[in-house]
Amino acid sequence: MHEFKYKKKRFYCENVNIANVASKIQTPFYLYSQKTLLDHYRKLKTAFRKFKPLICFSVKANSNLALLKILLKAGAGLDVVSGGELYKALRAGADPKKIVYASVGKTRAEIREAIVTGILFFNVESLPELILINKVAGKLNKKVRVAIRLNPDVSAGTHSYITTSKKENKFGLDFKTARKILEKRGDFPNLSIEGLHVHIGSQITEARPYQQALSKIVRFIKALKKANIKINYLNIGGGLGIVYREEKPQTAASFAKNISSFLKQTNAKIILEPGRFIAGNSGVLVTKVLYVKETPSKNFVIIDAGMNDLVRPSLYAAYHNIVPQQKAKSKFSKPIDIVGPICESGDFMAKGRSFPRVKEGDLLVVLGAGAYGFSMSSNYNSRPRVAEVLVSGNKFRIIRRRETYADLVSKEIF
Amino acid sequence: MHEFKYKKKRFYCENVNIANVASKIQTPFYLYSQKTLLDHYRKLKTAFRKFKPLICFSVKANSNLALLKILLKAGAGLDVVSGGELYKALRAGADPKKIVYASVGKTRAEIREAIVTGILFFNVESLPELILINKVAGKLNKKVRVAIRLNPDVSAGTHSYITTSKKENKFGLDFKTARKILEKRGDFPNLSIEGLHVHIGSQITEARPYQQALSKIVRFIKALKKANIKINYLNIGGGLGIVYREEKPQTAASFAKNISSFLKQTNAKIILEPGRFIAGNSGVLVTKVLYVKETPSKNFVIIDAGMNDLVRPSLYAAYHNIVPQQKAKSKFSKPIDIVGPICESGDFMAKGRSFPRVKEGDLLVVLGAGAYGFSMSSNYNSRPRVAEVLVSGNKFRIIRRRETYADLVSKEIF
Repeated sequence: MHEFKYKKKRFYCENVNIANVASKIQTPFYLYSQKTLLDHYRKLKTAFRKFKPLICFSVKANSNLALLKILLKAGAGLDVVSGGELYKALRAGADPKKIVYASVGKTRAEIREAIVTGILFFNVESLPELILINKVAGKLNKKVRVAIRLNPDVSAGTHSYITTSKKENKFGLDFKTARKILEKRGDFPNLSIEGLHVHIGSQITEARPYQQALSKIVRFIKALKKANIKINYLNIGGGLGIVYREEKPQTAASFAKNISSFLKQTNAKIILEPGRFIAGNSGVLVTKVLYVKETPSKNFVIIDAGMNDLVRPSLYAAYHNIVPQQKAKSKFSKPIDIVGPICESGDFMAKGRSFPRVKEGDLLVVLGAGAYGFSMSSNYNSRPRVAEVLVSGNKFRIIRRRETYADLVSKEIF
Repeated sequence: MHEFKYKKKRFYCENVNIANVASKIQTPFYLYSQKTLLDHYRKLKTAFRKFKPLICFSVKANSNLALLKILLKAGAGLDVVSGGELYKALRAGADPKKIVYASVGKTRAEIREAIVTGILFFNVESLPELILINKVAGKLNKKVRVAIRLNPDVSAGTHSYITTSKKENKFGLDFKTARKILEKRGDFPNLSIEGLHVHIGSQITEARPYQQALSKIVRFIKALKKANIKINYLNIGGGLGIVYREEKPQTAASFAKNISSFLKQTNAKIILEPGRFIAGNSGVLVTKVLYVKETPSKNFVIIDAGMNDLVRPSLYAAYHNIVPQQKAKSKFSKPIDIVGPICESGDFMAKGRSFPRVKEGDLLVVLGAGAYGFSMSSNYNSRPRVAEVLVSGNKFRIIRRRETYADLVSKEIF
């Protein structure tokens, strides 16, 4: 369910004809729907309403301040993973008490910044990190709340780059180590170790892996209770899958239903960290056809957006649905590749796809680009990063301006 | 052969102890050796001296202006693939007559900029592009020189993302189509189609694929000659492999020797487009160990550099040699993963590597990071991009300053 669709053969975002945006703003650009963003946040909120969870939007999915502000205004917290994201969260006006901070590689400076800010808690990924946070907290004369990230060793069944909870992954601690730490929590006088965190991966479309992980965690929490160790926060992470292609991902409601029996047994405050679920289908990448190149063995639609703008197809072999802004009457006679201008064979948006017959100058819309789209973009091939545009109803406005050539060298000293 | 090595158990760049740089500049950072950069350029120049080729450094490999200036001063030309790279080439002071421009996706605006600048020639990748350049040239009342990029359908035997000359790749034109265009060159009155271009891929360590491609091209040029079609320029691209691991790549001298019989037969001005060969081993990424995380199943060295800083291991499964700045006495008892702080399992620099026993705070040096390192870096996870530093002899200076948190939001409108 999102607000990107055809109306009379023209593709719209909410009530804005995307061609109108492209007539004012140079392609490629990212285009977001405010309504879709809010709808997805509210779906989760409604599904979990009986738990009154803190829903911390995962800033790494999309860190544009205008989007963060919309979510904050609706009551969201934020999940950050770096000093830069903490900075952005605060610039967007986040309440520090609604910020959680995860990352296997927090630096001492970042830990200090987060403690001084007064965030809700750190998700801690290793024993040496716990020791460092305790030390920094001591120097600042603060008592700092932390959650231990567990690695439940379950498989989320997704691309190996986005599976995070197998024991060979760098994330989290095994139950045994976590238990030892909790038993010896007195060794960390400046910490209040009162939360558990689990995040099993990304783009997970069914409840089973969550249930597997949560059943282990519930058992763990019960065992801890017997040892008089109380867990006040359970952060169940994110990872909810969305529709990129033909997936039939679980809805927020069915997800909540399928895991609520586990959550109830914990008696803990529940935290969620959705990123893709909220932002993924709230944004598209709008691009223009530069050339249609026909060769004896293959035909290519060459577009003005490259892997520097959207790296997911190249990096994760990700599928993105792509539609022409103006509905075409016929299809190409054979499957085509949709490729970018970057000088790499890995620069493609789609391969071997049956596609409407488009021509030079036509606009294409790459769907599902709202999460891990702009946030992963680069200046590779010295390409200025594109503009980000927000639609609300029948209006649109630029929320990040396109970079200029001069921006490319503004930090260089030559 | 490069200027990065141990001297008395400390790792140096030329005559600079890298620890001294790290005491002044926040890690991670890229560090380049001016001498190595120049040495590699000169090796190619010497190897091909009897052809007096134009050696156009491939800007996409590393577009830092200070590095470009060094190469320009030594006589290099530049190979650009976008308007941004053309802008950078000119800012670095390049002579337009030594700039060649390739890319499957040149926009009309980029074509216009390059024509007005007066570059040496375009490498043209498709018929519709040829038609567009002819049209833009006509409007500007200019006669524009072009080279046709041939796709010789040879396999370079490398990663599929960096093989560019199989017929299923998006690059270049088949011989038959190229021949037709050359026979009908009168249809393009504003173009002087007088060059051929071939670029078969990247990180190619042996001469054979080059010989295969060139033998086809020599035959093509001879056939054209019989039809009174003269080829004045032969651009043989880049793609020369370097040592990342245990490769024994061809030297510049043996490469020149192995292909010179083909080049001689063409009677054309030779152009080379090396990128990695010149810059690859001229730069390293210097990073700090944040944590050593031992788990029952695997041990991790967590560093402060991530896939946003150097994406090659993640994107291409590329191997980079990594050494501790200070030689260690012993090794870890089992193979380790060296991973970054980014919240993705794909964020690693090395996997399952036998490695010296390092500890928190130690500096590591990632070798072979001078090409496709900084130029592909991003702000993913809202991480400011790192500084670039240039060493010459016993001196070093910043050639791109580290980004700040404020830089992260400077283009946002919120």
